[in-house]
Parts: sequence; structure tokens; C-alpha cells
Amino acid sequence: MPFRDTLKGIVESVEGGLGVIIMGYDGIAIDEYFLDNAGLDLNLMTVEYSSLLKDVRHTADILKAGGLEEMAVNTARSRVIMRTINDDLFLALILSHDGNYGKGRYLLRRDAYGLNDRLS
Amino acid sequence: MPFRDTLKGIVESVEGGLGVIIMGYDGIAIDEYFLDNAGLDLNLMTVEYSSLLKDVRHTADILKAGGLEEMAVNTARSRVIMRTINDDLFLALILSHDGNYGKGRYLLRRDAYGLNDRLS
Repeated sequence: MPFRDTLKGIVESVEGGLGVIIMGYDGIAIDEYFLDNAGLDLNLMTVEYSSLLKDVRHTADILKAGGLEEMAVNTARSRVIMRTINDDLFLALILSHDGNYGKGRYLLRRDAYGLNDRLS
Repeated sequence: MPFRDTLKGIVESVEGGLGVIIMGYDGIAIDEYFLDNAGLDLNLMTVEYSSLLKDVRHTADILKAGGLEEMAVNTARSRVIMRTINDDLFLALILSHDGNYGKGRYLLRRDAYGLNDRLS
């Protein structure tokens, strides 16, 4: 799994990091790094959220709001940050509710560019 | 419009603030404060995003991720932050792309509690 080091680096660099995944808008995972003891069904979570992200991208398109860059959903138990890599792929980071949201956003933004180069 | 001062205070306190709205999950606006020269169709934007927010809440429910607290969507032209007030209502803040996202999140979190007291 060629991207494992990058993904592991993200999860281990952010307080409360539970897992991160490179996923296609078609719902197919390219690579992932999940902690075993996350206590949430991270796979199901990323599949469900990827479907939402597709809807959000479509809505942003209708609204002429410009290309989708990032979407975040915070609930009582988790924080999920999704960051566009390119037209086909995105990164999704799952944090615990008390995870470091700002740092998570920063790491995704930083690594999305490099991943785009490697995936194009 | 009884909440106008609160809403105006949010928009004018955050760099890049374009508008803020108190909206029901049924898509009906309770009160709003929009700048005239926002350059985006803020009304359409809030209606479209409120529909997405309902889907996200439903998904969070399926995932047993706990109650939805916040959702944010950043595109090339705008940043939209939505914050739950209570089971029926939410706040949506629209910022320009270079708006102060962190401060916007803070102001919504701070004022959502007070608005819940006044709206309950």
C-alpha cells in the first residue's frame, strides 16, 4: 500500500486521530490507515460520508460557488474532515470529538497537494 | 425582526462575513442578516445547504455518531458554516473564501446557545 506512510503520518500527527482514507467519489477506497481501537465503524462512516460529499459537490456546482475544497462534519462523537485531492479523489480524516480540528485541517491541506502529484 | 442585532453582530464581527441566517430544518428562514453586495445568491445557497444538512443529520444518526453539531463547506468562492441551535433550527454563516473561518466557528458556537434559550 504505497500511501500508507503518508496516511499513518497524518493520523499519528494529530491529537485524537482515528483514521484517514483516500477515497474516490465512486466510493472505492484507494488506501487507508485506521486505528484498531477507534470505537466507531470507520469504514461505514467513510462510505456514507463520501456519498454526502458527492451531493455537496453537486450543490456547490449548481450554486456556482466554485470547486469544492473541504467539508467537515462535527457530531457529539466524532469530527470528520474531507479534503478534495482532485476531481476523482478525496481524503477523509476521522478524529475523536476532542481531536485537534485545526491541525487536522492543516495536515489534510498540506498532504492533498503532494498526493495529487503522486496520483495523477 | 427580533434576532437582527445578534445576526448583524455575527456578520460584522468576522472578517469576510457576508450573511447569517437562522433556519429551520424544514427550509423556512426565521430571521437573517445579509450584506447587499455579497456577490453570491445567499438565499438560494442557504436553502440548498439546509437540504444537505438534513441529509447529513440523517447519516450521522445512522452511523450513531451522536447529534450533529456543525457542518462546514469550503469552496473556491465561499465558506459556509452551519451550527445546530436545537432539533428544529440551525444557524448558517456565509463567509468569503478568505474570511476568518476560525472566528466564524467561534461566534456561531457562542451565539447558538443564547439563541436556543430565546427560541425555546
